[in-house]
Amino acid sequence: MDGTTPQVPTPAVMAALAAYQPGRSLPQALYTSPEAFAADMAKIHRKHWLFAGYGFEIPNPGDWFVYTVAGAEIIFARGRDMKVRGFHNVCRHRGSRICLEGHGHSSVLACPYHKWSYGLDGALLLDTAKEFGVPKSELGLKQVAVADAGGLLFFSIAENPPDFSEAIETIGRKMKPHALHRVKIAHQAEYRVKANWKVVFENNRECYHCPTNHAEYNLTAYDVERDRAVMDPSLLPAIEAIVAKANERFAKLGYDTGDASSNMTGKNWRCHRTPLKEGFVTQSLDGKPVSRLMGDVKEWDSGTLRCTVFPNFWQHTNCDYACAARLTPISANETLVRGYWLVDKDAVEGKDYELPRLLEMWDATNSQDWVICENQQAGISSPAYEPGPYSTLRERNVAHFVDWYLGEMRG
Amino acid sequence: MDGTTPQVPTPAVMAALAAYQPGRSLPQALYTSPEAFAADMAKIHRKHWLFAGYGFEIPNPGDWFVYTVAGAEIIFARGRDMKVRGFHNVCRHRGSRICLEGHGHSSVLACPYHKWSYGLDGALLLDTAKEFGVPKSELGLKQVAVADAGGLLFFSIAENPPDFSEAIETIGRKMKPHALHRVKIAHQAEYRVKANWKVVFENNRECYHCPTNHAEYNLTAYDVERDRAVMDPSLLPAIEAIVAKANERFAKLGYDTGDASSNMTGKNWRCHRTPLKEGFVTQSLDGKPVSRLMGDVKEWDSGTLRCTVFPNFWQHTNCDYACAARLTPISANETLVRGYWLVDKDAVEGKDYELPRLLEMWDATNSQDWVICENQQAGISSPAYEPGPYSTLRERNVAHFVDWYLGEMRG
Amino acid sequence: MDGTTPQVPTPAVMAALAAYQPGRSLPQALYTSPEAFAADMAKIHRKHWLFAGYGFEIPNPGDWFVYTVAGAEIIFARGRDMKVRGFHNVCRHRGSRICLEGHGHSSVLACPYHKWSYGLDGALLLDTAKEFGVPKSELGLKQVAVADAGGLLFFSIAENPPDFSEAIETIGRKMKPHALHRVKIAHQAEYRVKANWKVVFENNRECYHCPTNHAEYNLTAYDVERDRAVMDPSLLPAIEAIVAKANERFAKLGYDTGDASSNMTGKNWRCHRTPLKEGFVTQSLDGKPVSRLMGDVKEWDSGTLRCTVFPNFWQHTNCDYACAARLTPISANETLVRGYWLVDKDAVEGKDYELPRLLEMWDATNSQDWVICENQQAGISSPAYEPGPYSTLRERNVAHFVDWYLGEMRG
Repeated sequence: MDGTTPQVPTPAVMAALAAYQPGRSLPQALYTSPEAFAADMAKIHRKHWLFAGYGFEIPNPGDWFVYTVAGAEIIFARGRDMKVRGFHNVCRHRGSRICLEGHGHSSVLACPYHKWSYGLDGALLLDTAKEFGVPKSELGLKQVAVADAGGLLFFSIAENPPDFSEAIETIGRKMKPHALHRVKIAHQAEYRVKANWKVVFENNRECYHCPTNHAEYNLTAYDVERDRAVMDPSLLPAIEAIVAKANERFAKLGYDTGDASSNMTGKNWRCHRTPLKEGFVTQSLDGKPVSRLMGDVKEWDSGTLRCTVFPNFWQHTNCDYACAARLTPISANETLVRGYWLVDKDAVEGKDYELPRLLEMWDATNSQDWVICENQQAGISSPAYEPGPYSTLRERNVAHFVDWYLGEMRG
Repeated sequence: MDGTTPQVPTPAVMAALAAYQPGRSLPQALYTSPEAFAADMAKIHRKHWLFAGYGFEIPNPGDWFVYTVAGAEIIFARGRDMKVRGFHNVCRHRGSRICLEGHGHSSVLACPYHKWSYGLDGALLLDTAKEFGVPKSELGLKQVAVADAGGLLFFSIAENPPDFSEAIETIGRKMKPHALHRVKIAHQAEYRVKANWKVVFENNRECYHCPTNHAEYNLTAYDVERDRAVMDPSLLPAIEAIVAKANERFAKLGYDTGDASSNMTGKNWRCHRTPLKEGFVTQSLDGKPVSRLMGDVKEWDSGTLRCTVFPNFWQHTNCDYACAARLTPISANETLVRGYWLVDKDAVEGKDYELPRLLEMWDATNSQDWVICENQQAGISSPAYEPGPYSTLRERNVAHFVDWYLGEMRG
Repeated sequence: MDGTTPQVPTPAVMAALAAYQPGRSLPQALYTSPEAFAADMAKIHRKHWLFAGYGFEIPNPGDWFVYTVAGAEIIFARGRDMKVRGFHNVCRHRGSRICLEGHGHSSVLACPYHKWSYGLDGALLLDTAKEFGVPKSELGLKQVAVADAGGLLFFSIAENPPDFSEAIETIGRKMKPHALHRVKIAHQAEYRVKANWKVVFENNRECYHCPTNHAEYNLTAYDVERDRAVMDPSLLPAIEAIVAKANERFAKLGYDTGDASSNMTGKNWRCHRTPLKEGFVTQSLDGKPVSRLMGDVKEWDSGTLRCTVFPNFWQHTNCDYACAARLTPISANETLVRGYWLVDKDAVEGKDYELPRLLEMWDATNSQDWVICENQQAGISSPAYEPGPYSTLRERNVAHFVDWYLGEMRG
């Protein structure tokens, strides 16, 4: 950089962070001000591990895709050693973009401006010492840390990324049966949501809003029952019975033990296998399959493996399909969400799955949530907004997200 | 708020206010800078009484409409006691918008996110003490002051609104014959004007520009003659005769005495009945009616009741129709103007009035003015702009508006 | 102005200027930050001489055109004395734009708002002393300096423009054979380039990118050979022979001596006649004419007269046509480029020239360059960008431009 970077967070953002009242939603500025957005990018998105995409998207050496987040364009390229590396898409000569498309294949990464070329390991292939006065060893592409968790590619732009090894190991192990290297993207949707990325993530962290907003989701999920049990402990034994039965099944299939709840405590990630609604084999409106079995899954009904990683990813993985969301903050009041629908690599559209049926539950639920988020963003932007109280029963995971966020921002 | 609100006005805006030279247009920054716009909103629009709409738009309990200004969305709802109240459209739980449409009807105001519901008096209907740790009495919708002036709804977002009682009483009394509770909106136009709200209001405060810009308006108004008399006192007796004759007529009809001029002195509002051009019964191109008599008006030609309220409203009320403008500042260089055309509630389109004829004079005049305003805004934005001198004869009301504005901003 | 103008450059821009490492591209903020853009406008574009257009565009008294740059709209009008003057397009009354179109003809310059009228010399024609309290002598249009260099109109908004007399004299003399008062615009193109104006100008200052980007240009120009000679001195004698032969020809035609290189040293302008590729008479793909001879040029092949003026102009003038570019910065990451194609006044489309053939080389080259510039701007905007080293052989003119820029900004 060039010495012009202003203090982040700015005093106004620091004041907003200090003004937080525990158990309530965040102060307005943290959801709406460009300064707070810049601070989020600096303290969260350019530090933590983010989901970029899937390893199966770039199966061969020389395959690459580009993901742009927090102002940084990153090339994810598979090397001749089959390892995926991440590079800033910035030529070390005069700064031009190198890869101009979203994905592609090339034996070297060549800048279109003056054809400076780099190997798939990022090394500059041009002798610069004489003509440019700088040895080529100082002019390799800038690299970012990349980790593969059972086929999910995570990366960190930070110079010293935080330790993420437990997450990588756990997620990798739990994803294993779904064999994410043998799947394909059946459909991808780009949603442009006029709301802060935290508003979008908070919405994902509770099902208090489900009964009155998600007709389709409610048909498929046992979450609503679980929320009822939270309110009325007399319903708890029934829930516990469902979980016990599911766990028995997961053990029989050789999977990790499941978990009744979506609770996340302390960490910024979780990966839990949770039961489906009774009689359902996958997350579909009628409980019946929407595609053929995926990866190494051998029997119908593997529950739903719920993976959540702050600040930009979640995925529901069933026995026959997975649905994921990757959040890309655009500005204080805009977030781009990419929805992914994965099915087995060999599943054939029209035979094994039909797109309308594959998409119907999650696309409806996503779209309902974006409307909610946009209306919340609009209200939060009012001079009359003040942080309101969270339910101590039904919004604990929202409070957990907010507490994690504040800890990172103040740290 | 959250302690992050910056000082308003900022030092740069204070400097621009201090640099004002009496008798001239405002310094550039006050028309063009985002900081000055923020200061305008804080010191003027979030303090003073603004026009929102008409009581007749929400005749029944449970009817509501929403008006958004200065970053605040306000719900105007008629209660079971027939009183109109104003509430910030912000749920006290997590801040979502409550009413999602521009107008509607509902027995309670229910937030779409988690269905927190409020009565038409703003009281929260959910028991929050146990689950949320806050008694519901602390979580009612935030209310704003609303006043009904003969059917015109004014409101103030301020915690302690300035005294507006004389305006409410006077406007209410003078509007009475036009019975604004028995009218309807025949047409509404939304004009997006690329000019500062003060540029738009200043344009309204003088007719020096009329002779060369408003062919249609000039046909109907006696203002141009009056401006000539200002320049040439020998024409004054003729003008005074017109006013005297009109006043005689107004007295006979039981109306308040009229006024020759559009002068406003001291106050930020006025409501004057002024004569029409000789031989005209309303503001139409040929002087003939454009609709049936309105409200309790019993005879053709009630003059024109001119109501002006800084900073966002004016209305011309004739015997058969009224035309109004509501100004909503969007940014330093953009203003949204809603034009209203009101006719008697029982007037039938195609029989009592034709839209093209009803609109022709004011829609043409409005559109001409917006072009003028946009060209002025463009010129003011030049680094070469410097405040120019007002005519001491023909731009006194512009000077009055500017003086009022400066007083409020410096106060 | 009004005392509210902030310090320019701001401390952040000053820091970026100070952080510059010689021999490298500029620090990020200078290409991307709105503050740096404001500083550029203040220190460069509102100070230096800019190209506005051509004298032949306004041949008669009362003809005018408008050019908007750095926030200033300037009217260029030819007076009754045939002199071209420049005026800010801002009425001295309330600041409205006066000329509303891009070009026109009028005997006086009349403001549309209140019809304040000015002579073609900028003098106000209204007696303001009595009604406005200010004598009309103080209310003339604000004038900017204008100079005619052989038909090219340059202007400076500065109160005390820098000395430009040598440029005016030299460019005027060298343009003479092309008789730019007897040409016409055959075509004009507006390119909106999403890149900083310096990125666009730097791209123009080297041909290191030509071999791999400009298939069309490479056919017509000897620059690529010249660049090869820079890399391989054994090729120099061949280049020198081409230049010597061309100079002989120019001397015979009575033109100034040419120059082998595009080098610019010290100054912010140059005007050199350079050779064409062997066997070419103009800059066309096949070397054959694209229009009839222009102005006083008597023989085919006048080389190419290359005129470059920082910060907004370049032109290639051949024996039969000229192609020029005028750069107008819009924001830190957007530049509007107008491309001009000039031919002899009497050239007839369809007979003397065909537009596709006239445009093919430069329109392709321009469009290729804008893509390059946009990709460079995108990469420079990354947090990973850091200034890279210039070639000491092939990017010396880029370094010269950057050095000139830094000198002006620091001065």
